[in-house]
Amino acid sequence: MLEQKDLNIQSLSAAEKEKLCEELRRKIIETVTACGGHLSSNLGVVELTVGMFSVFDFPRDKVVWDVGHQCYAYKLLSGRYDAFSTLRQKGGLSGFPKRKESAYDCYDTGHAGNSVSAAMGLAKAFDLKGEPRRVIAVIGDGSFNNGLIYEALNGLSVLGVKILIVLNDNDMSISPTVGGTHELLVQSAKSEELKKKNIALIEQYGVKYIGVVNGNDLGEVTAALKEADALLQTTSVLLHIKTKKGMGYDFCEENPVKTHGVAPDGAIAEREYSSIFGEKMLELAGKDGRVVAVTAAMTDALGLRPFFNTYPDRSFDVGICEENAAVLCAAMAQGGLKPYYAIYSTFLQRAFDELIHDVSAQDLPVTFCIDRGGVSGADGETHQGVFDLSYLSLIPNIAVAVPKDGEELADMLEFSLTYDHPLAIRYPRSARAAFGRRRKVGIGTFEYLTEKSDADLTVLAAGERAISLAFDLRKETGVPFDIVNARFVKPLDEELLKDISSPRILTIEDNVLHGGLGDQIDRFYLNSGKRIDNFAYFDKFIPQGGISQLQEEYGWDRARMVACILNEKP
Amino acid sequence: MLEQKDLNIQSLSAAEKEKLCEELRRKIIETVTACGGHLSSNLGVVELTVGMFSVFDFPRDKVVWDVGHQCYAYKLLSGRYDAFSTLRQKGGLSGFPKRKESAYDCYDTGHAGNSVSAAMGLAKAFDLKGEPRRVIAVIGDGSFNNGLIYEALNGLSVLGVKILIVLNDNDMSISPTVGGTHELLVQSAKSEELKKKNIALIEQYGVKYIGVVNGNDLGEVTAALKEADALLQTTSVLLHIKTKKGMGYDFCEENPVKTHGVAPDGAIAEREYSSIFGEKMLELAGKDGRVVAVTAAMTDALGLRPFFNTYPDRSFDVGICEENAAVLCAAMAQGGLKPYYAIYSTFLQRAFDELIHDVSAQDLPVTFCIDRGGVSGADGETHQGVFDLSYLSLIPNIAVAVPKDGEELADMLEFSLTYDHPLAIRYPRSARAAFGRRRKVGIGTFEYLTEKSDADLTVLAAGERAISLAFDLRKETGVPFDIVNARFVKPLDEELLKDISSPRILTIEDNVLHGGLGDQIDRFYLNSGKRIDNFAYFDKFIPQGGISQLQEEYGWDRARMVACILNEKP
Repeated sequence: MLEQKDLNIQSLSAAEKEKLCEELRRKIIETVTACGGHLSSNLGVVELTVGMFSVFDFPRDKVVWDVGHQCYAYKLLSGRYDAFSTLRQKGGLSGFPKRKESAYDCYDTGHAGNSVSAAMGLAKAFDLKGEPRRVIAVIGDGSFNNGLIYEALNGLSVLGVKILIVLNDNDMSISPTVGGTHELLVQSAKSEELKKKNIALIEQYGVKYIGVVNGNDLGEVTAALKEADALLQTTSVLLHIKTKKGMGYDFCEENPVKTHGVAPDGAIAEREYSSIFGEKMLELAGKDGRVVAVTAAMTDALGLRPFFNTYPDRSFDVGICEENAAVLCAAMAQGGLKPYYAIYSTFLQRAFDELIHDVSAQDLPVTFCIDRGGVSGADGETHQGVFDLSYLSLIPNIAVAVPKDGEELADMLEFSLTYDHPLAIRYPRSARAAFGRRRKVGIGTFEYLTEKSDADLTVLAAGERAISLAFDLRKETGVPFDIVNARFVKPLDEELLKDISSPRILTIEDNVLHGGLGDQIDRFYLNSGKRIDNFAYFDKFIPQGGISQLQEEYGWDRARMVACILNEKP
Repeated sequence: MLEQKDLNIQSLSAAEKEKLCEELRRKIIETVTACGGHLSSNLGVVELTVGMFSVFDFPRDKVVWDVGHQCYAYKLLSGRYDAFSTLRQKGGLSGFPKRKESAYDCYDTGHAGNSVSAAMGLAKAFDLKGEPRRVIAVIGDGSFNNGLIYEALNGLSVLGVKILIVLNDNDMSISPTVGGTHELLVQSAKSEELKKKNIALIEQYGVKYIGVVNGNDLGEVTAALKEADALLQTTSVLLHIKTKKGMGYDFCEENPVKTHGVAPDGAIAEREYSSIFGEKMLELAGKDGRVVAVTAAMTDALGLRPFFNTYPDRSFDVGICEENAAVLCAAMAQGGLKPYYAIYSTFLQRAFDELIHDVSAQDLPVTFCIDRGGVSGADGETHQGVFDLSYLSLIPNIAVAVPKDGEELADMLEFSLTYDHPLAIRYPRSARAAFGRRRKVGIGTFEYLTEKSDADLTVLAAGERAISLAFDLRKETGVPFDIVNARFVKPLDEELLKDISSPRILTIEDNVLHGGLGDQIDRFYLNSGKRIDNFAYFDKFIPQGGISQLQEEYGWDRARMVACILNEKP
């Protein structure tokens, strides 16, 4: 049924719709097992998605998927069945909603908590243009903790729009959902009295509450959507559904954390920086009672589970609340603790003001452990970690370190323990290489990875991927240039830089060109007469694809690098 | 009494405390009238502050002032009476809490909504260190709308700390408070039934509610603080007080918006960019029905009051919710509207992720109208607008424009109407100069402000202040260098730049050096052999002071500029 191009879901019988749900589940499991992607979150919303197609008129009506990693069934039902096998591959379907992909996708998402605001903005636009359309935000209980939700609810009366918010409550963000807001939801589902209180709460924002509905029961969820639709004439609605993440796939139901994101079949499991980080954090905590770890709903992916198990009193998963986590770290540091805030590069963007205002302006010793730095691959535009070296380096007082390998990450963490200022340590997901030399980590120190020579060219590379590439190019071209581990993007090792006698410099970094290492090296050697070439990413959003392919295409142009190394005129 | 160095507030009689309040009010009015500063917010919390000193043991106990602009009475009572006449002056007392100023200040603030998180972090640190101290957050109802508050409340059960939150409800943020959360507060104060619901809400986060208490009645507020203090043994507490902003100063009580921030006596009222912006917005809205204006609680200061009055259906003040405002703009643009988001430079930092993820990654035509760009003066570190050119320029798809004067701001706004991509227009507060030439604004176009010549030096300057300085230097040195209005920091006018034949270039911008105009010009002329000198601000947080003095001290070094212009060896 799923492969029918003209499938009219509204005309299907209940039994046919049930069958459609089965087909969707099968197709999702089959594809994610082959291509990688988000599995359990997508399996949980199959009935909801079919229910929405039964009640609403897409693409005339609009749905904003919060985070967006649960949109697979929606994609399969909106003309993308044939393309679905290209999921998360270069040039293929995105694992997230993408406006450029289909008229059914009205708002691109990837980060958490913006769906209610986005639905409100769309609804306001349609109101002002006199177009009666229904606008729906589908949001998980994990995202519902994010401060943006509260800001959106607060603004609902200002905008005066009527939207449907479907709160998909599955007790899980990526890690199990934590915090007070989630507790309210859990209790609502259990106690009539608490449910009434929650209804009172949400309804004071001008939102009618419906729930709790079994979101994996197609009949029940469809009926609730119909009820919500009727109410939308006069009010915004919050439809609270319970679903089971991974519903219908036994392995997932039992392992929702592990199967949140799935690697494609046959992917080689490498050592991850997160596990090196997690081990070292355990060691640091063991010898220094001030050490605390903070995360925003990513304990496992960041390697902190052993720490959380061993030091529960010094471990804080505050839910998808990146800003709160940053302020807590600043204040804990001010109170005499030594906080480590582990986070993905792309999500730290949410705490940019707190990085400036709370941590750096007060010069507090918070250490940011930034995973998924650089091109991150299959999740596409919204998940690349290619801006961090730039937005961090522009902030006074914070040092920005980029380890060359797992051992150096551990050394940098060791160094951080006695460093009394803000520090960011940034690394990609996988640790593939190990470079032997280990010059003691001091603030703003680089190290030569080859013997310092009188070579004509010195390559300054930041991070494992850039350094590996430098070594590859040295081998490939046979040119014996010097290679320097530019392990602090800020501050620079001015002494070492001043001492470089080679007339040519080449920089490589896993970051956009603007404001990264290259810009700083250019500035350092300004008016020096040295020839400098910078390799970093172009001023473009980088889509999904294989990591090395994207790097090559978006700035690490190997042919141009070789020409530079051979000193050929470009 | 106030001037007594060993004043023990706890030992004073009720009558003496009342007298102390009077003295505080008089001193605050007298000083703010002379030095400028926040008047009405400070007058409102005099009794609360005396009450807190009566009940708590500062500096052993800690108070975090949200935003911090209401800390004057606290400063006067914590050993800073003599220094108070230096308020907001260079080297003098800050208008905000500053740890470096006194042991009584435990956390520097300036931006809204972080106080509850900060209090929680401090409390956790004291818990882990086994130091029993009381930690208090004082927050206005305007800040209480910010998403960070919700994130903090959500995290309270995770941290398991006990803090006192004093919600200072005066119906005002800077503009009158708007939105659903505020409505809840207003209704609570009016209706017992709604109050019960709100109590139920806040108490589900594990916070005991006390209120509503008259915060301008010293006896009442002191008694409530005592009650809260006793409860802190077992639970966190929200003490809801009502105060009158500007209490005790008739002029303020009647004009709380105008007296939120007061200019010092004798300050010359210049034309402000905000009024030029406001006028032009009215014009644009009149001819294009897609135009909508969004602000985060700053309607008046940004010049939007006439627009809001004339086009109430297309005006949205969403409260101190910078992130929500940005997402709303993205979605309204996606829905076919033409949103203008007016905001102070420093506060836009809060929406950095939304700038990237919602607006620019989707390449949506949102125009950011960024006021208070550059050094902003007396509010100090937390309010300087010196990072924006850098953090905006690193984002793909967004153009960054810097008008040379008020007329060019209007021209740029006119241009924005047909520009179909993200656009940031950034300007300082005061418009002093007007430069005659008006080359039509096209994307990424500079203009010569002097006749293009075969001069040895070309100065590229961005923004009114930088251009004025360039003209001053031209006059002062008598060197007839060319002056270019670098009115797009991104994209650069590559054609004009390629065409510059002078061997020396000098850049001036009202922004930090890292990632701003200078870095981009350096990169553009990389390996060209041109001599380039950049004048921008150092990698430091810039404290309070007079604008020109700070500019000179933090990077616009006039002597060095003159030497560059005269081509003397540095």
